[in-house]
Parts: sequence; structure tokens; C-alpha cells
Amino acid sequence: MGVPLIMVVTKFNEELPKATAKRLPQYYRIFKQLVADKVDRTNSQEIAKKLGVDSATVRRDFSLFGELGRRGYGYDTVALRNFFSNLLGDSAETNIALVGVGNLGRALIHYRFHDRNKMRITQAYDVAGNPLVGTKTEDGVPVYNISDIKKNLADTNIETAIISVQSDRAQEVADILIDAGIKGILNFTPRRLEVSDDITVQSVDLTSELQTLLFFMQDKKASNQ
Amino acid sequence: MGVPLIMVVTKFNEELPKATAKRLPQYYRIFKQLVADKVDRTNSQEIAKKLGVDSATVRRDFSLFGELGRRGYGYDTVALRNFFSNLLGDSAETNIALVGVGNLGRALIHYRFHDRNKMRITQAYDVAGNPLVGTKTEDGVPVYNISDIKKNLADTNIETAIISVQSDRAQEVADILIDAGIKGILNFTPRRLEVSDDITVQSVDLTSELQTLLFFMQDKKASNQ
Repeated sequence: MGVPLIMVVTKFNEELPKATAKRLPQYYRIFKQLVADKVDRTNSQEIAKKLGVDSATVRRDFSLFGELGRRGYGYDTVALRNFFSNLLGDSAETNIALVGVGNLGRALIHYRFHDRNKMRITQAYDVAGNPLVGTKTEDGVPVYNISDIKKNLADTNIETAIISVQSDRAQEVADILIDAGIKGILNFTPRRLEVSDDITVQSVDLTSELQTLLFFMQDKKASNQ
Repeated sequence: MGVPLIMVVTKFNEELPKATAKRLPQYYRIFKQLVADKVDRTNSQEIAKKLGVDSATVRRDFSLFGELGRRGYGYDTVALRNFFSNLLGDSAETNIALVGVGNLGRALIHYRFHDRNKMRITQAYDVAGNPLVGTKTEDGVPVYNISDIKKNLADTNIETAIISVQSDRAQEVADILIDAGIKGILNFTPRRLEVSDDITVQSVDLTSELQTLLFFMQDKKASNQ
């Protein structure tokens, strides 16, 4: 991945709560925006409001990293932006491979991860039957035959991959990716992947996201009756 | 939405933890799969393994709903599938409108929400400049001009919408949707939407998902050093 291994600051250790870890990209985005808007400092209430959580959550999250702010002053936006940038490894370029160049795969290739972050899909893969294999997408990303992935990745520092194939191929693709040296997978299928402990999987299940929305809508209606 | 308002069973109330609520679709998926696989009963260890959490979490989640299982027997898969189906309103059809028929929008229309769930994108919208307006997608979903949305939705029971436009249009689109009677939004832009308390927003931030993956990969590497 080419990211410096920072075993971060004062209190940060392997027991960082998963919920906190998931908020890190959002904190980073908020501080980047504040710096872009030329706001010099902020406080936990304002951050909490932007994030849609309560301010105690923000203070508790930040306290895990040590002293990020000063009492009575709040948080320096440039310092905090840089802090979260380092924490998320966003100071280094991260190249990513994508497997499954269907509708979703093409949308993800086109999605502007790189506009505000140093992450970029640089290679795409599909099976020989996909007519895009051997061509480049409209965004200039080459589409290779999945059978070439191990050979191709050996020449790169790519350790991160996106799976956007049909569910029933997801595990097979994950096994191929791991065999080719991939350490982290962003999984867009509803299939839960079986991987060894040294592999990280982050899943985005679109059906679950939609069901969660419907559940909260229903719950809100019932509470208001 | 046409979903029966079930203010559910024994202990379930408005204080259901958000983390639990987010696991409901995953429980539902697991029990559907078990029933499809002709497995009659299961236990918290097996569910926890499929979900990637510890079994105490599963037991605590289920205890919020009252007595779902029997000591020494475990959980009846058909009963639990039906329970979660009702809880998630999956016994009723849910029609959904989508705004933003670019790459991501087309991928979402094509995504098979309906294959295993009763959720279906039935209308799509974009601005007049999109050549797809006035046509149907390859999946047969009509694409309308966004200026017609209020009139169109008045004739339907649609209360749920997906936003897959560029970030800088997200709030404007959300305002239009809410004015047209939408109560729940699945937001695929990184922009946080400002909405009133009676509106539910579920956000899927693809950049954050990728950053979270990179963070966990880095953290795992650092811990192993």
C-alpha cells in the first residue's frame, strides 16, 4: 500500500473501538472542508452537528488519540486535518484493483475517489467473456483477464482490491485476490467472505443499507403514532 | 411505503441501539439462507460466526426482542426468518424512486434488490440535460425529468428515494424529494444532508468505506510488527 506504518500517538492502540475507526474518514472529511472554507478552529459541538452524533461521542473519540484540542480554544482545523490525513494514510498514493466490470464496477471506476483523496483504481479485471477485457474504460483504466491478476500484481504495490462481481462468484474471486497478494478487500456483494486473519474485509451491502433505511422509517412512523 | 406499522413485540421500543438496527438486515439474510438450505434450527454461535461478531452480541440483540429461541433448542430458522421479515417490513412491496441516472444510478437500478427482497426501483429522475430523460433504462425503469417528480409521486405510494447525483446537487435534490413527499433517503453522495426530524437519511459514503478499509489494513500491519 506504500503507507507509512504509524502506530499512532499517545493513547491510540489496537483497542480503538470499531465504531470510532469507522468515523475517522468522516472526521477527516469535515476538517478538510473546514480548512477549504478557511475556518481556523472549531469545537466538538460543531463537529458533532456535522456528523449527526452527539458531542460527547466526538470528545470521547478524540480523547483516544490524546490531546488534540485545547480547553477554551477548541480544535485547530489545519492541525486536525493533518492528523487525520496521517492516521488514514492519505498522505501516500494508494492504488487499487477492481474485479467485476459490470454496471457497478464501471460506476466505481468512474466514482471520483481521487478528487479529494489519494486513492485510485488503476487496474480492472473480469472474465474472458466480458467484451471489455483487453480494452480500457472511458476513465482510462485497463481491463485485464482475471487469469492475469497474479502476474500483473507482482509488478505493483497494490494490496487493496474491490469486488463488484455477482454474489455467487465473490468467494472464488476473494481466493484469487488473496493468492495474488491482496491484503484488503472492499466487498460490494452481499456474500460474507471467508478469509484468514491477516486479510481485512470491508463490506458494503446495498440491500442491507436499503433495508436499514426502511426499518428506521417504519420505526419513526410507529413512534410518532 | 405500504408497510404495516408494527411496534414490535415484548421488549422492542424506540431505544433499540442503532448498531443492533443495522444488523437486522444481516440477521434476516442469514435466516433466509438457512431456510433455503433446509436447516431447521441454529444457535447464537453459528449466527455470530456467519456475521463476524461474537455470540454475546447476537444473544444481546435477540434478547431485545423477547424470547426468540428456547434454551437447549436454539432458534427455529423459519420462525426467525418470518420474525425478521415482518420487522423489516419485507412482507410488503416497497417501491423506490432514484434521482441521478449517471453511472452509479444505472448500476443501482440494475442491482438486483428485488431478487430476494420486495424492494424495487420503479422510477428514475434526472435533469433535462440527461439524454436518458424520456426513455426507459435497459431494466425497463422510466427516466423522468426531475421537474415532474412532485406530480408523479402524488399518484404513487412511494416514500423512499435514492440520491445518486453529484455531491454539490445532493442537498437541492433532497429538498425537492422532501417537498414531493419522500420520507426516507438513501444518500450515495458524501454530502451530509440537512433534513427535518421526520425524515430518515441513510448514507453510503464510498470514499469513507474505502478509507475505513485502508485504516484497518494499516492498523493490522502495525499491530503485527
